[in-house]
Amino acid sequence: MENIPYKTYLAENEVPEAWYNLRADMRNKPAPLLMPSTGKPCAAKDLEPVFCAELVRQELDVTTAFFEIPGPIRDFYRMFRPSPLVRAYFLEKALGTPAKIYYKFEGNNTSGSHKLNSAIAQAYYAKQQDLRGVTTETGAGQWGTALSMACAFFGLDCRVFMVKCSYEQKPFRREVMRTYGANVTPSPSLTTQIGQKINCEHPGTTGSLGCAISEAVEAAVSTPGYRYVLGSVLNQVLLHQSIIGLEAHAAFKKLGVKPDIIIGCAGGGSNLGGLIAPFMGEKLRGENDYRIVAVEPASCPSFTRGRYAYDYCDTGRICPLAKMYTLGSDFIPSASHAGGLRYHGMSSTLSELYDQQLMEAVSVRQTGVFEAAQYFARTEGILPAPESSHAIRAAIDEAIKCRAAGEAKTILFGLTGTGYFDMTAYQAFNDHLMRDYVPSDAELEASLAKLPTIG
Amino acid sequence: MENIPYKTYLAENEVPEAWYNLRADMRNKPAPLLMPSTGKPCAAKDLEPVFCAELVRQELDVTTAFFEIPGPIRDFYRMFRPSPLVRAYFLEKALGTPAKIYYKFEGNNTSGSHKLNSAIAQAYYAKQQDLRGVTTETGAGQWGTALSMACAFFGLDCRVFMVKCSYEQKPFRREVMRTYGANVTPSPSLTTQIGQKINCEHPGTTGSLGCAISEAVEAAVSTPGYRYVLGSVLNQVLLHQSIIGLEAHAAFKKLGVKPDIIIGCAGGGSNLGGLIAPFMGEKLRGENDYRIVAVEPASCPSFTRGRYAYDYCDTGRICPLAKMYTLGSDFIPSASHAGGLRYHGMSSTLSELYDQQLMEAVSVRQTGVFEAAQYFARTEGILPAPESSHAIRAAIDEAIKCRAAGEAKTILFGLTGTGYFDMTAYQAFNDHLMRDYVPSDAELEASLAKLPTIG
Repeated sequence: MENIPYKTYLAENEVPEAWYNLRADMRNKPAPLLMPSTGKPCAAKDLEPVFCAELVRQELDVTTAFFEIPGPIRDFYRMFRPSPLVRAYFLEKALGTPAKIYYKFEGNNTSGSHKLNSAIAQAYYAKQQDLRGVTTETGAGQWGTALSMACAFFGLDCRVFMVKCSYEQKPFRREVMRTYGANVTPSPSLTTQIGQKINCEHPGTTGSLGCAISEAVEAAVSTPGYRYVLGSVLNQVLLHQSIIGLEAHAAFKKLGVKPDIIIGCAGGGSNLGGLIAPFMGEKLRGENDYRIVAVEPASCPSFTRGRYAYDYCDTGRICPLAKMYTLGSDFIPSASHAGGLRYHGMSSTLSELYDQQLMEAVSVRQTGVFEAAQYFARTEGILPAPESSHAIRAAIDEAIKCRAAGEAKTILFGLTGTGYFDMTAYQAFNDHLMRDYVPSDAELEASLAKLPTIG
Repeated sequence: MENIPYKTYLAENEVPEAWYNLRADMRNKPAPLLMPSTGKPCAAKDLEPVFCAELVRQELDVTTAFFEIPGPIRDFYRMFRPSPLVRAYFLEKALGTPAKIYYKFEGNNTSGSHKLNSAIAQAYYAKQQDLRGVTTETGAGQWGTALSMACAFFGLDCRVFMVKCSYEQKPFRREVMRTYGANVTPSPSLTTQIGQKINCEHPGTTGSLGCAISEAVEAAVSTPGYRYVLGSVLNQVLLHQSIIGLEAHAAFKKLGVKPDIIIGCAGGGSNLGGLIAPFMGEKLRGENDYRIVAVEPASCPSFTRGRYAYDYCDTGRICPLAKMYTLGSDFIPSASHAGGLRYHGMSSTLSELYDQQLMEAVSVRQTGVFEAAQYFARTEGILPAPESSHAIRAAIDEAIKCRAAGEAKTILFGLTGTGYFDMTAYQAFNDHLMRDYVPSDAELEASLAKLPTIG
């Protein structure tokens, strides 16, 4: 092995003390959120009935580059941060590639993923605002678990609408959230008006993030002392998740290494946006160049087959509109096993960067993803989440290209989490029962035809 | 917070390069294993049909203090070691105790526990001996998972007999092992003669580690190119697990801190024996004193209610006899949720130390254990394994005593693993359906009456 440690941890005093707001360095800012009622850009007062006030401030601020991380959040981060930057020596050896592969591993906490980075921030601001509780949606269950942990820590109520197919595939996820005191409801449910409507229009639906968001927002605005919090897509979330990239960037600096290719899975964009933030910042400022690659499931291909347009963020159309790569808010992805990537849209910041060709995107099929997951588990000793395994698949594909070309590129990918609650999916793979789902052109056209004309 | 980091990691070049054999410093050595056929101490040739040759050498060596860790094992360790020594600031604050609480966290790897420390060593020696595969038993599933990972890494076959009640409580554990290519059978099974016999004598039994050991040994000796490997109890296992204590000891030295009380859960003794090794060594050599506390379940109280005598290590009585604290090899513990602590006996080394009053033991009931587990999860952000939570319970009890007495003692406990595959148990607790099981005196007397007269 080279003189690079297997794992690089920053010392606690090297951990970043501020989040980085990538938008401050974008010449073309992401398009603003629009109010569905008026078609005009959202102001703070429009968003504050739904979101915590400080989070609204962060959401709307496109110029402040750094936000200091409050002390209580930094203290909580010490439970599970800094996360390691790992050199995948065993994977490199198994692949026989000259590529140097690194991954930033965010799975060493009980929520099982990077989601805790933003959950604790959002719970903190809710507590600061003297709220009673928060509502949210969860797909794979990682965000819901993270928020349950964060709310337990600050003594806030937590109501989670969990996408029905995940609720059924992952019975034990619910128990983790309950252990942290959360209330968990499968979505679409009959407890909200929008849930009743969706159940009526799509009988037997297994749900989607878009549905669950609508339900959670409705529950928040109709319950005094509650606000809604979201685990991805929004700029505030990308801001909090920048801690991933900032730590990785600092660790690389310490090692004297510069990555050539940076790869992350993309559902709503929280992990990818966080991982790439400081690197993309350098790219925007012309200081350094990197190839940046978003990996999405072929079953829900927002970047690679979607349209860059204003769309509703939720199926129930009660949230603001965002300009983003979207498959249409009516699109309900097939019940793939990567529940965290089943979102019809994409972060508006990442969408703008993609549109400016500052990053690339690829889509991968889930059988190939699980092949990569199993290979990684056996070589690197970590059982990855299905979502994270999308990035593994792409990283392995790049490393194989390096082998063919004899190029020793340095690859960084985000290993967002572990698959301990995804064993139904692994079982389907182990039993050779896993299938690939790819939407037809007709299906996508039908959904995109319903995009709003606003914006 | 004080000037002690939340987590202390050794640098990779500070990680111990040799395991420590505590027996070398014991004046009164643990009693030797005896052959059941002759009642005479086992020689290497007696054990080699069952165990790998190098592991037999380690098992029988009571004088060599340090065994160098082979390079490939040290490399594998780099995937998940060094493990952090964590200062439980949040737990201390929640308890309002002046005690300083530390835990050595072994759960940050896919097997979910410390078991991987010995699994990779045993798989390595099996590979070195050109074996085809190994058999083993698993209780909670952590050892089976660890061995599956280790075997996948070295390309060995792996057959796991999983205690039936765990197999049923933890459907997804099996899938993890399958993902690593292992073959998993619920025990007692109908695939071995001893399994058939036990099923016949105890119809409907939920199994025990003692039964599963018998089955795994039978499968190993009756399959060419196979050996049996065990995840606890044996001296070779305690030797490998000494890495836990050695790292903790080095980390404390780095911090300039000395623990007063060291606490670990004890089933067969692998974690406790590993955690305390260098500290007990100092105590034996008169260099330092520590209070050392074993914590066992009230449902399987080998130390606190068992007898120190020669007994069979397995229910089927095909293994060598060991002198140990035992409840009798016929004792089948109730189906408690801490599958990893359901063993009738105890490491002979720990038994001898306990008999010499060099350590203490307490037993705790599982409802109290899960109260502690939930409290810990909510304050420290880690969902602990039921087994590990026995140590948490005892550590909290000691910290509360410190609060009452106004004493700022330093407590170290072993947090052996995570509870992600134990959600059935948490569910029972969340639903207030968990019960405590404590064997009656009559039950224990009946079982102890059948102890062999040998030895």
